[in-house]
Amino acid sequence: MKTARIIHNGVAQRAMERDGQLALDDGTLVAFDAVTWLPPLEPTPLPRTILALGLNYADHAKELEFKAPDEPLVFLKGETALTGHRQVTRRPAGVDFMHYECELTIIIGRTARKVKRDDAYDFIGGYTVANDYAIRDYLENWYRPNLRVKNRDATTPIGPWFVAAKDVPNPMALALSTTVNGKVTQSGNTKDMIFDVPFLIEYFCAFMTLQPGDIILTGTPDGVVDCKAGDVIVTEIEGIGALMNTIG
Amino acid sequence: MKTARIIHNGVAQRAMERDGQLALDDGTLVAFDAVTWLPPLEPTPLPRTILALGLNYADHAKELEFKAPDEPLVFLKGETALTGHRQVTRRPAGVDFMHYECELTIIIGRTARKVKRDDAYDFIGGYTVANDYAIRDYLENWYRPNLRVKNRDATTPIGPWFVAAKDVPNPMALALSTTVNGKVTQSGNTKDMIFDVPFLIEYFCAFMTLQPGDIILTGTPDGVVDCKAGDVIVTEIEGIGALMNTIG
Repeated sequence: MKTARIIHNGVAQRAMERDGQLALDDGTLVAFDAVTWLPPLEPTPLPRTILALGLNYADHAKELEFKAPDEPLVFLKGETALTGHRQVTRRPAGVDFMHYECELTIIIGRTARKVKRDDAYDFIGGYTVANDYAIRDYLENWYRPNLRVKNRDATTPIGPWFVAAKDVPNPMALALSTTVNGKVTQSGNTKDMIFDVPFLIEYFCAFMTLQPGDIILTGTPDGVVDCKAGDVIVTEIEGIGALMNTIG
Repeated sequence: MKTARIIHNGVAQRAMERDGQLALDDGTLVAFDAVTWLPPLEPTPLPRTILALGLNYADHAKELEFKAPDEPLVFLKGETALTGHRQVTRRPAGVDFMHYECELTIIIGRTARKVKRDDAYDFIGGYTVANDYAIRDYLENWYRPNLRVKNRDATTPIGPWFVAAKDVPNPMALALSTTVNGKVTQSGNTKDMIFDVPFLIEYFCAFMTLQPGDIILTGTPDGVVDCKAGDVIVTEIEGIGALMNTIG
């Protein structure tokens, strides 16, 4: 099952895909471009904690000239960083390098505490796609990556769909790709994560509680390039969805 | 005006101070130790973004052998890190150094975006006291301080009171102190912050939106010492409150 969360005629609601359109609760079909897409979060539209991995694919760590990490490199994000499918993300004035990051995104379904990796998948509600933009100019703050790299308003589109966990038999073998104006610039596979999904859940739950609706952005492979105003960026994950976003 | 948020007879509710007791909405008076204290958050009990400053007092930066920063060093916290007054914070097994941090805590009252420092105080709803414990063992992760230093469950007591902003004429001249088992170990004054409250609000609002209920922990002065199981820690800020916490 896959669901979206949208605004149609001023009303926020859930919607399903049917025949290449969105089916609303009352049965109405509307076109994808006739609605405002919101982050497709279940069971609650407001996550309490948003976790994000840095350098979780060895090739991307190498690309940024960093050593692959010995333990997960994790930072938190605030809720105002999120936005939806088909939204605009602004390139700040005067910056030198802003890049996309296609990331498999986990949405927690059940309260998880001291969960071991063999049970980890039972606590996942579903998956979606994120594009976790980075403004690379500000990377080298002491708390890297700092807020100005990763926590600006509307710099993390997620969506379009929440895909229920039961419909993703193996999240550790999904092709990821990004296109910029139709040209493929990034391609990878979730099998190349340094710390895989069950590892991450066990790691977090050892010292903190994950709550329903919490989000884990699992990192990106190599192939990031600078994005300019007007670029149309599509981040896609096999079986999960294709998330479109425009640089403003 | 100052308010608490408590659980009494299984019901979460707001309460006021009256004659050294808590006055409930129905007029009942109950003793401070007869309730469970929750984080005193207004207007919503669930913050969307929790911002925390590192090294925002020059003397504390020196104590940790770090250079005082040129720009705010900021990290985010998740909501499960919070707990209330009179709660227990666990010292993780096998760690070498766990220290308290007495911090003036801002609670945002109105949506703030592109706010300048001269207007910053208009967007503050109120203040409380935080004790933002750090498990120093895990400091030197690439994303320092990492989640295991600053994002464990119930390692950030805040409270006891939400004190309305209008009742704090000058938040930049308040004495801070911490006692461990009754002995003063930390004392300072908010006037010694490197980046003051109006600066921080202008800084954040330049690239992200602050929403009602969001929290800013403004950093701690020097004088941090290791805490052991059984220690009773009181972090106090002049005119705001005295927050008590026990190490478990």
